[in-house]
Amino acid sequence: MLRERFYTLTASCPDQVGIVARVSGFLAAHKGWILETSLHAQPPDEHDETGRYYMRVEIRADSLPFALPELCERFRSVAEDLDMEWKIADSALRKRVVILVSQQEHCLYDLLARWQAQELDIDIPCVISNHETFRGFVEWHGIPFHCVPVTSDGKDAAYAEVRRIFEEARGDTMVLARYMQILSPALCAAYPGQIINIHHSFLPSFVGARPYHQAWAKGVKLIGATCHYVTANLDQGPIIEQDVIRIDHTDTVADMVRYGKDIEKTVLARGLRYHIEGRVLLHGNKTIVFR
Amino acid sequence: MLRERFYTLTASCPDQVGIVARVSGFLAAHKGWILETSLHAQPPDEHDETGRYYMRVEIRADSLPFALPELCERFRSVAEDLDMEWKIADSALRKRVVILVSQQEHCLYDLLARWQAQELDIDIPCVISNHETFRGFVEWHGIPFHCVPVTSDGKDAAYAEVRRIFEEARGDTMVLARYMQILSPALCAAYPGQIINIHHSFLPSFVGARPYHQAWAKGVKLIGATCHYVTANLDQGPIIEQDVIRIDHTDTVADMVRYGKDIEKTVLARGLRYHIEGRVLLHGNKTIVFR
Amino acid sequence: MLRERFYTLTASCPDQVGIVARVSGFLAAHKGWILETSLHAQPPDEHDETGRYYMRVEIRADSLPFALPELCERFRSVAEDLDMEWKIADSALRKRVVILVSQQEHCLYDLLARWQAQELDIDIPCVISNHETFRGFVEWHGIPFHCVPVTSDGKDAAYAEVRRIFEEARGDTMVLARYMQILSPALCAAYPGQIINIHHSFLPSFVGARPYHQAWAKGVKLIGATCHYVTANLDQGPIIEQDVIRIDHTDTVADMVRYGKDIEKTVLARGLRYHIEGRVLLHGNKTIVFR
Amino acid sequence: MLRERFYTLTASCPDQVGIVARVSGFLAAHKGWILETSLHAQPPDEHDETGRYYMRVEIRADSLPFALPELCERFRSVAEDLDMEWKIADSALRKRVVILVSQQEHCLYDLLARWQAQELDIDIPCVISNHETFRGFVEWHGIPFHCVPVTSDGKDAAYAEVRRIFEEARGDTMVLARYMQILSPALCAAYPGQIINIHHSFLPSFVGARPYHQAWAKGVKLIGATCHYVTANLDQGPIIEQDVIRIDHTDTVADMVRYGKDIEKTVLARGLRYHIEGRVLLHGNKTIVFR
Repeated sequence: MLRERFYTLTASCPDQVGIVARVSGFLAAHKGWILETSLHAQPPDEHDETGRYYMRVEIRADSLPFALPELCERFRSVAEDLDMEWKIADSALRKRVVILVSQQEHCLYDLLARWQAQELDIDIPCVISNHETFRGFVEWHGIPFHCVPVTSDGKDAAYAEVRRIFEEARGDTMVLARYMQILSPALCAAYPGQIINIHHSFLPSFVGARPYHQAWAKGVKLIGATCHYVTANLDQGPIIEQDVIRIDHTDTVADMVRYGKDIEKTVLARGLRYHIEGRVLLHGNKTIVFR
Repeated sequence: MLRERFYTLTASCPDQVGIVARVSGFLAAHKGWILETSLHAQPPDEHDETGRYYMRVEIRADSLPFALPELCERFRSVAEDLDMEWKIADSALRKRVVILVSQQEHCLYDLLARWQAQELDIDIPCVISNHETFRGFVEWHGIPFHCVPVTSDGKDAAYAEVRRIFEEARGDTMVLARYMQILSPALCAAYPGQIINIHHSFLPSFVGARPYHQAWAKGVKLIGATCHYVTANLDQGPIIEQDVIRIDHTDTVADMVRYGKDIEKTVLARGLRYHIEGRVLLHGNKTIVFR
Repeated sequence: MLRERFYTLTASCPDQVGIVARVSGFLAAHKGWILETSLHAQPPDEHDETGRYYMRVEIRADSLPFALPELCERFRSVAEDLDMEWKIADSALRKRVVILVSQQEHCLYDLLARWQAQELDIDIPCVISNHETFRGFVEWHGIPFHCVPVTSDGKDAAYAEVRRIFEEARGDTMVLARYMQILSPALCAAYPGQIINIHHSFLPSFVGARPYHQAWAKGVKLIGATCHYVTANLDQGPIIEQDVIRIDHTDTVADMVRYGKDIEKTVLARGLRYHIEGRVLLHGNKTIVFR
Repeated sequence: MLRERFYTLTASCPDQVGIVARVSGFLAAHKGWILETSLHAQPPDEHDETGRYYMRVEIRADSLPFALPELCERFRSVAEDLDMEWKIADSALRKRVVILVSQQEHCLYDLLARWQAQELDIDIPCVISNHETFRGFVEWHGIPFHCVPVTSDGKDAAYAEVRRIFEEARGDTMVLARYMQILSPALCAAYPGQIINIHHSFLPSFVGARPYHQAWAKGVKLIGATCHYVTANLDQGPIIEQDVIRIDHTDTVADMVRYGKDIEKTVLARGLRYHIEGRVLLHGNKTIVFR
């Protein structure tokens, strides 16, 4: 799955006539070869009177006559004219994803399999857990493992330590791969749009603890999982991806847990992929996902 | 899709050893030919200390040496021994389904197409609406149409009229095919397990009015529909069937309404089929659905 | 679902640097307000050495200082420079869709319900059938109905008559809504990319007659439906849309037929919508579908 | 997910009145507590004039007054009267599943994660591969790893060695977890209904090599995977489970490979679970799957 090097421009700005013309004109003037373009005009709503325009463009690096710093430098004036929030990522710099896990295998195994197969184009500088369970498994893959226990009266210290490790690892993204602890508001606030969680229900149904028990008690006919950015509001952050699976009256809570794992890992992997490829843009508490 | 005549026994009783042996032994003793058997042991829970056993059995009518009344008479002693709630339906007596509709086409057209094609084995003695919109369409099919307007200060009279029409039509089941009025508690209570609604969200998410607006505001990635029995608790009755469809950031509320219709009509038709075929048994506020 | 008037440009051309810049630059120069843009670079393959670029752009009509003829006139030079195949549709001119049907209700009822609800933005100038079955139903909707029987030795005459009716109705698109006759190669050739069929299997599995019987004999666990353009090669035309539904060992062929109908009508309606909105572009025997 | 010990009776016999009564009567006479019962009457077809009856019953071991050998001994006369093929499995004896793999991670990681989590109630006595790739990973789990290269002129010897290892490991089931070699007819014939493969297409579409390339060339809108028993007819054995995933025109073959992996591993795990729990019964080249 090796691809040529490319840059990914993601941007948003107030909607107006001529945005695409301006950006694509800039790229064409430098012979920039566009690999993929995604565009979305979000209509005006209560947060945003004019409407907002979102874009994601992949440009082949070797088609441009200059390197990334100069591309950014030159693009800056286009962006300023359009009052744009933007960034340009370089495919040669892999995202550094730190995984947090507790004691369930499924998401961890799934992510490491994808990483091994180079299906997910990431580095995993380390794995952090509140248990020792997976030390051997993780270290066998050549990935450092940090056990940071979270005790009821030592939460602040624990999250400070998580943060220290994440910084030391120069992490871009924190993935809660069934990490069964609630991060502190301070930690959430420190990394907006950088912490991804997998919640084991089809949000907004069954917020909080033991969602499969809630689903069983309610008698729903499908159960789901939700991949979302973590914010200080528990289970309320912007939703990146969701999916469901059919159950019936014969399924116990244990069966639902088992079925649920299959969706959890798939939904988490999809959401993480969208995130690291710069396909997820935020609009208030909602996401634009350019698949 | 013509099938030979058959009886459908549905029953539940406290779980114990020998239930299936007793019932199937009774049938075998009379040479009853079983077409289909569905069995389910619901484990003990807070409502039910012993656990409860549910069954549905289809028996070919002409395999038995007697008619339905004698079958019932003879089965009674088996049922009493097992402390069973039970009934036996005769496929020769079609269920009489009264449809209530407001001004949206999709569920009404869908149900009438299935009825025309004899795909749903029901009679439709009449359609009731709070608007005149579909009078011509319904009457063209040879089905009587009753317009019962529901005004804010005339609700009691309106629901009394609905009830009178339903009784006069000798209805078994009332289907709310996007009927945009909230039935009175009295009407709900009069027909427990006989009124089927289609709610345009994946319950328990987005209870109440304008669920697609709620879904849009939340930014979910799938929307759904729920077919459930109506109880006095709005949108809280036992769930019979649900399904979902994928949406994304490009979809407006109007798009979601349009996508939603496709699931609403399918989910309603499935739920109704399960109901009229005696495939839905109630366990507290949950359903056993023998597909 | 009324929207403001808009033009839809669909186009394809050999891939090169600057296509988007040229087209969006042209539109921006005339203050054209873009509502939606979809772009796709099809990589080089055996049919096409350079790769081919596909686009679909919706432009608000009242944002432009001139009407459609002048828009076309001015765009022509852009298109010529890019060696482009293109057309521009006007949302004010509804597509005229002629429906062909035999004796099954489900697709016909479904399409007419969507048309009634103005969910599908089309005119239906007439319905053609080889049976009288649906005359009353269609005419009740105020739509002319033509019965054109197809006999084994009168096929040429029958298809000539279908063609005459289609022409007289100034049809744009012919929809085979479970029309159980095989169109003549001449008729297929006369309307490339204009005849849409719904095939009751997940192609390329189970080509030809009685696909549900084939699926039953094979023991597959999912059955499907395929909406495709009709070509002279039976069931081999470009696929527009497909979907599947789960079955199991308890399902008879009759059950599969019944389940299948639910997918057939949904898949046909989706495919037709993509087609009339100009979302389907052809690349050899494959489709680009800009959803 | 620990459950009490139970026996699983699976059986089939010519259909007649009284089968369920006879079997459930036998169990009730010994106070056998039935946990789960699945029944299916397969109608007469060209292979089978009388129709055939299939059943699967789980009985709590400690509810019976004798152990498995005596249960079998006593049941024998019931089975003989009904001309039954049958067996009784003991949940205390875990199935021994030998995994064959080549160089792709996804199915192997997935199966080992489920085994680690005790989600799949199996022993894995060894893993066999035609490459050394996963030796370390497998051995880290404490599972023996055998590399048996398959060269073009050494196939017979290789498969003889696979067979020897399987026998020595006292394997019940062989799982081809993306094992990219075609087993010899002799090996297939030696273990009918014991070798499970995952094929990376929605069979019967795209039999043989490079199914994703075939799917891409055809332009299908969904791709799938099929879990089936291996027979000497390549990709033609009885289908246990299938699923699909949506793709579109933007997806390259590489993308399809990536999406496909997610279905392959899920479909394989589901099929394997059904198999080891005795939920799959064969009817000619089709399967009854009691979920």
